[in-house]
Amino acid sequence: MTETVVSSQTKTVVIGYERPFCIIGERINPTGRKLLAAEMAIGNYSRVESDALAQVEAGAHMLDVNAGIPLADEPRILAECIQLVQSLTDVPLSIDSSIVEALEAGLEVYQGRPLVNSVTGEEERLESVLPLVKKYDAAVVAISNDETGISEDPDVRYEVAKKIVERAEDYGISRNDVVVDPLVMPIGAIGLAGRQVFRIVQRLREELKVNTTCGASNISFGLPNRNGLNSAFLTMAIGAGMTSAITSPLHPEIMNSIMAADVMMGTDRECRRWISKFRQPISENASGERAGRRNRSRRRHSASA
Amino acid sequence: MTETVVSSQTKTVVIGYERPFCIIGERINPTGRKLLAAEMAIGNYSRVESDALAQVEAGAHMLDVNAGIPLADEPRILAECIQLVQSLTDVPLSIDSSIVEALEAGLEVYQGRPLVNSVTGEEERLESVLPLVKKYDAAVVAISNDETGISEDPDVRYEVAKKIVERAEDYGISRNDVVVDPLVMPIGAIGLAGRQVFRIVQRLREELKVNTTCGASNISFGLPNRNGLNSAFLTMAIGAGMTSAITSPLHPEIMNSIMAADVMMGTDRECRRWISKFRQPISENASGERAGRRNRSRRRHSASA
Repeated sequence: MTETVVSSQTKTVVIGYERPFCIIGERINPTGRKLLAAEMAIGNYSRVESDALAQVEAGAHMLDVNAGIPLADEPRILAECIQLVQSLTDVPLSIDSSIVEALEAGLEVYQGRPLVNSVTGEEERLESVLPLVKKYDAAVVAISNDETGISEDPDVRYEVAKKIVERAEDYGISRNDVVVDPLVMPIGAIGLAGRQVFRIVQRLREELKVNTTCGASNISFGLPNRNGLNSAFLTMAIGAGMTSAITSPLHPEIMNSIMAADVMMGTDRECRRWISKFRQPISENASGERAGRRNRSRRRHSASA
Repeated sequence: MTETVVSSQTKTVVIGYERPFCIIGERINPTGRKLLAAEMAIGNYSRVESDALAQVEAGAHMLDVNAGIPLADEPRILAECIQLVQSLTDVPLSIDSSIVEALEAGLEVYQGRPLVNSVTGEEERLESVLPLVKKYDAAVVAISNDETGISEDPDVRYEVAKKIVERAEDYGISRNDVVVDPLVMPIGAIGLAGRQVFRIVQRLREELKVNTTCGASNISFGLPNRNGLNSAFLTMAIGAGMTSAITSPLHPEIMNSIMAADVMMGTDRECRRWISKFRQPISENASGERAGRRNRSRRRHSASA
């Protein structure tokens, strides 16, 4: 059974096939957010605070923290933000940087067992990030690209993921602790972007037996009604076997879709979370109907009159 | 390439892997609709008319017509309803009855090439329905249960479907013309109902290479916020390879989910239908951004600021 265990000082989160889908809040990230970037660069973290609290309030199980601001002292800012967010919330964090020194600065101050975001299949990244992951006993996101870039062939991306998992094992990191990101392309540019991801995710689950994550919002880049597309993408990715995503929990449409997908996957046991959220104060669905077994011989005819 | 071709006098609809998902409107069905049943029994078809028009207006590609009213003259009523609906709309129809005489009465008056709904794996049904399907050169829905009932083992349901497809071929009916219904159970009663269907659908597509359909609303029987669950179920079923469903097109949430799933499966070419439906009058997504390729190296960071 594949389980990735991450924690804060007081809270443990398990990513796994038989667990509800893990939502990693994406908002604490200055990329494409000019105001946030400018504030973070001068040490004003008020928006980091409010983003942290709002995402946890909205149901995020973990938070991604990224401080990638050009020309800024990223290691220091990332470490400060991690300490701040850990002082405000109890969810485990994903420490997100493309700079190894920033990852290490974050790891040094982190309380608990974080997710390191990320390593790729590039030699230089493997050799610099994996020892850190081992040293701090963390879990790690493995992105399925390498020196040759991002293949449009899902089977090539699968092979890159496999290589990273095997290299991690060479460093003494269990595949339980490698969460593969198959890379999500904008479907407005690459029509098969969705099917590529679903295929890779299914292979990662059935053959490589690892957990998976992705930056879900990319799928809808440049298209209208992004939340509608992001919801469908996440729902289908969960159906294919994906177990977590870095996304925004602030859209009710997306959160409801993920909750419904958990019902469909059987990870919302007895539909308890769904029923608790949506049942009417005065129930029309009182005794008996919930069991619904009488419907077994009356397929498809249960629509209301 | 698997394609099921159905038609009215003037319109052809193709169900297939590379086609947008086919929505078969479920509303013309007196089961569980007492008022409609009472009206249909006395030859008042005004609600059949309005249901037909509303469903086509809402985007149904086909309509299911069922006249299953206890103690009524179902063959006559079904035939009359089919003639009426064909006089009002141009979408192909699914002729829905568990009574062979009613199916034949419907087939006799139908203009075009209908879908016969349905045959099961029961010997008596195979021997009575398949000759009719062949005689009238129709397509047929094959429901994956037999004399032993409905198995909770998806692989058993797959085998029942396989038997029906092979028997149809014995009668000279191509597997292109057999649309398998894997049977959808209420997930409030059977927690694995969703995963069962997704597994069967995937096998039906990859191994048996047939089209699939289902009565989608059953999944949410007895649970609150049924549209939310039905939307997620359909989205995941499409991801698993399902190509049509008998459902209500009158819920925008469900229709939008199916449209988004078509984008994800690459069957909404260049996202044209999605863009046409959702783009803003004054576009924020003007030249260049739609292509979105610059996002390729900036995975996951395309959320708005």
